[in-house]
Amino acid sequence: MEKTTYIYGIRAIIEAIESGQNLGKVYLLREAEGVLMGQLKTLVNNKKITTSFVPVEKLDKISSHGNHQGAVASISPIDFASLEEILENRQVDKKDIYLLLDGVTDVRNFGAIIRTAECTGVSAIVIAESGSAPINPATIKTSAGAVFNIPICKVTHIKDAVFLMKAYGITTIGASEKAEKNIYQTDLNSSIALIMGSEERGINPSTLKVIDTPVKLPMKGEIASLNVSVACGAMLYEIVRQQDS
Amino acid sequence: MEKTTYIYGIRAIIEAIESGQNLGKVYLLREAEGVLMGQLKTLVNNKKITTSFVPVEKLDKISSHGNHQGAVASISPIDFASLEEILENRQVDKKDIYLLLDGVTDVRNFGAIIRTAECTGVSAIVIAESGSAPINPATIKTSAGAVFNIPICKVTHIKDAVFLMKAYGITTIGASEKAEKNIYQTDLNSSIALIMGSEERGINPSTLKVIDTPVKLPMKGEIASLNVSVACGAMLYEIVRQQDS
Repeated sequence: MEKTTYIYGIRAIIEAIESGQNLGKVYLLREAEGVLMGQLKTLVNNKKITTSFVPVEKLDKISSHGNHQGAVASISPIDFASLEEILENRQVDKKDIYLLLDGVTDVRNFGAIIRTAECTGVSAIVIAESGSAPINPATIKTSAGAVFNIPICKVTHIKDAVFLMKAYGITTIGASEKAEKNIYQTDLNSSIALIMGSEERGINPSTLKVIDTPVKLPMKGEIASLNVSVACGAMLYEIVRQQDS
Repeated sequence: MEKTTYIYGIRAIIEAIESGQNLGKVYLLREAEGVLMGQLKTLVNNKKITTSFVPVEKLDKISSHGNHQGAVASISPIDFASLEEILENRQVDKKDIYLLLDGVTDVRNFGAIIRTAECTGVSAIVIAESGSAPINPATIKTSAGAVFNIPICKVTHIKDAVFLMKAYGITTIGASEKAEKNIYQTDLNSSIALIMGSEERGINPSTLKVIDTPVKLPMKGEIASLNVSVACGAMLYEIVRQQDS
């Protein structure tokens, strides 16, 4: 569990993708060309697999024996779930919680958030295909293993997931320091999707626009900025408190 | 700010202590003897300065030039506050919050907790003289600079601080997974001291015994264990919510 497993070579990676193997990230040689490489590039593009174009030194470092043919892929330690399937199969009489992460990039924050989501009974975590912290051994460790207990879904843009939530009648709230409404003045006694933004920039402005209610936590001090995993925890617990009361 | 400053040599450290300089930790050579060293040992003991007895290699590593005479001290980046003074000068008509950390050892957790405490208007953070995470550049960074905005007090044992809180009529609550009471069923609409335990073992059993009310957060999942900085944040915000309502 603590070690990342890699697949080496263009053909091996193509086989892996076609057989439905869940890949974490594909590393391709920056200047690589050729018919087979072209096939692989089309495949990762179609399947929306996170891909990095890297210098040969990076590939040599990952595959100590050097026999990578310009392509290395890490195997994802988890199976991603389908958000549509989860929403279709939900019990409508139950108040549930969804957590949408719009660009959380630090693995320790990501791990702590997954752990909190598991403890607060979140039905699914949604991340974007690119710009999210990876699910790697550090994430698994900080999550205390919770990554294996909670469905994690990937979407192209978090905005798409917000629209999907709304289509299913789920109230969307987003953490924003500029929000007018304090979370404690917000009615959360229904099914809720909470959107948390990135450590640096918060929620993407175009995502924030489509969210039902931006909310904030009261700030008593001068720095007025919380660690994202702490803010996420305080907000998830307020949802739990209101749903349970 | 990002670099720890050290003082080298027995006499220099004695001078620093006597002139009121705030030391982080004193490292003394394990087998060191002599009149001056005896004086220094008495001094650090009386002033309750955290002291480590180390082999010569450790001292050589800290002081690259090697001229340490068996003694090196790090300068604390902050001035510790007196808990007694803070409690004596508090406004009794105001509901305030105190945060007592009973052995939080991870600097990133400690930093995130200091940051949250600043954002929730905590009046003082109390740590034990030994067994606490240090206030070093990593703590300062994770705290987003909040270490400089909030009084931090050192006590010999957290239990002493609990008794002091009670003497001042402040309700003491302690986070414990084994608590019978959910924090949302607990009246927190008065001055509160929240005690958080260590990442591994929680609150020391002898401390837990003297706390007014052990409290827990509801757990919906299977892992039933939160990161300490997340749990602390959710609890501090519930105190804020109740005090403000």
